[in-house]
Amino acid sequence: MISEKKQINMKLLAVGTVAFDAIETPFGKTDKILGGAATYIGLAASALNTDVSLVSVIGGDFPQEYLDMMTSKNINVDGVEMVKDGKTFFWSGKYHNDLNSRDTLVTELNVLADFDPKVPEHSADAEVLLLGNLDPVVQLSVLERMKTKPQLVILDTMNFWMDIAWDNLMKVIAKTDVITINDEEARQLSGEYSLVKAAKKIHELGPKYVIIKKGEHGALLFHDGKVFAIPALPLEEVFDPTGAGDTFAGGFAAYLTKKGDFSFETMKTAILVGSAMASFTVEKFGTERIETVTKEELSERINQFKELTSFESAI
Amino acid sequence: MISEKKQINMKLLAVGTVAFDAIETPFGKTDKILGGAATYIGLAASALNTDVSLVSVIGGDFPQEYLDMMTSKNINVDGVEMVKDGKTFFWSGKYHNDLNSRDTLVTELNVLADFDPKVPEHSADAEVLLLGNLDPVVQLSVLERMKTKPQLVILDTMNFWMDIAWDNLMKVIAKTDVITINDEEARQLSGEYSLVKAAKKIHELGPKYVIIKKGEHGALLFHDGKVFAIPALPLEEVFDPTGAGDTFAGGFAAYLTKKGDFSFETMKTAILVGSAMASFTVEKFGTERIETVTKEELSERINQFKELTSFESAI
Repeated sequence: MISEKKQINMKLLAVGTVAFDAIETPFGKTDKILGGAATYIGLAASALNTDVSLVSVIGGDFPQEYLDMMTSKNINVDGVEMVKDGKTFFWSGKYHNDLNSRDTLVTELNVLADFDPKVPEHSADAEVLLLGNLDPVVQLSVLERMKTKPQLVILDTMNFWMDIAWDNLMKVIAKTDVITINDEEARQLSGEYSLVKAAKKIHELGPKYVIIKKGEHGALLFHDGKVFAIPALPLEEVFDPTGAGDTFAGGFAAYLTKKGDFSFETMKTAILVGSAMASFTVEKFGTERIETVTKEELSERINQFKELTSFESAI
Repeated sequence: MISEKKQINMKLLAVGTVAFDAIETPFGKTDKILGGAATYIGLAASALNTDVSLVSVIGGDFPQEYLDMMTSKNINVDGVEMVKDGKTFFWSGKYHNDLNSRDTLVTELNVLADFDPKVPEHSADAEVLLLGNLDPVVQLSVLERMKTKPQLVILDTMNFWMDIAWDNLMKVIAKTDVITINDEEARQLSGEYSLVKAAKKIHELGPKYVIIKKGEHGALLFHDGKVFAIPALPLEEVFDPTGAGDTFAGGFAAYLTKKGDFSFETMKTAILVGSAMASFTVEKFGTERIETVTKEELSERINQFKELTSFESAI
């Protein structure tokens, strides 16, 4: 599926949460299960055989088997610090019937409250840095602790940080090459309703590439006056949207890392790969489905995306 | 833009409202201006040089200049009956700030209340019949008054008719080849949240082709287990969404009529053409923009759609 030739051995470093989630959807509910942005990013990168390392923090209550599972998938967890007498970040949420909105029931920051990210020596020269959705202060710390300036900085963030950490968010956005946010967040960040105008304003804040995630409606990529749009694959069953955005970002970043090429054309394909990855995540609760995705399944799903959007060009 | 060779001289007959609209958007408001589904359909078909005839009803208050404008664009209005002592259908609405929702302020059915559609002799053998959004009873009457069975029946409808005219709507849907509705209407019609499942259920009601219009999020075409998705063109300015759905349906039907081919592949292109047409309508109030679209503009817009969705196929 992914051509192995002409690939440069770049490294991807991702910072984000490794957490417990408890999820309720119209189709069922879970106890505390494995979650967190960095977890989904790592699993997506692993499915693409990318050299990926995570920076995160967990408590003494975090099961070793989860770490072992990640390690077995060649996800480097040296940068996942364990605070023995602390508890792992816990989030609980309940999705509404349409799965497009949810209520947060519980947020226990726990060890995340004092998270001081450590970048392992072997990752401090990673060419691609993915700043998963986290406090901008933590994202800035990771940027500062890189030994060499990454060739590509990708930022995932959300409305929450726009509400409570605007100034720090602006600082990290200024150092970002690619930002991924949803349509409402793009509007909040820019003060513009039109996404075309919103993207222009966000470009002025720093990111040359603006990705707008629209969930079941697909994604948009804006760059230098150009725009690329990809629909989402209409799915027969959507079971649990948790982690879809993180999986998308992880698949996107991992594909670019493997290619070692950050052009607009390559980013289009990376969005396709990220979208295909995310379409697996939503099929089961939590990480269950993305943990088991095979190369063949991913290849087939990417072909489905191509069929979905292909038309004969003659009008 | 549209290849002139190998074209069959098919005819398009469309039934729908010819009306007055008064529109308020965040960008301004209008007095009573020209509106109505059949009007937008006719103008879209005219821009594609399609042989199009309209069936509708107007009151004695309807300005001759509007009819003359349509005639000058080769839109046949022989089937637009004038009730001299009646008043033309009038709709007034106000859009919310996001332009995705609106409140109806006034609906005066007037001559539409007793509309008994007349199909002119020259149109009674039209190969393509577009049943614009109207009372299903009227749509059924037009179907019955065709001299020959159309090769393709396209139905546009909305939630209003699902609420108040379910049984008659089912009768007309059973005789339909292509149905165009929005995502919420597809869910209401099928009782399924997943659009994949919704399309399957709607297929069982009659239409082999189901088009789901998602406004700023594009459109989906379902047929025989296959699906095609097209995003909407992200626009810098959206001024007035009124008539966008009718323009889409008109452009779609007109393209198929010109091609004389109703395959899945041709329908994909027809959706592209309809989407491009609709992207003009929203740029100004009412019919102002779609009235002036040139072949060159349409051709350029279609190329923008191709660029929007094109990617290098090598992964």
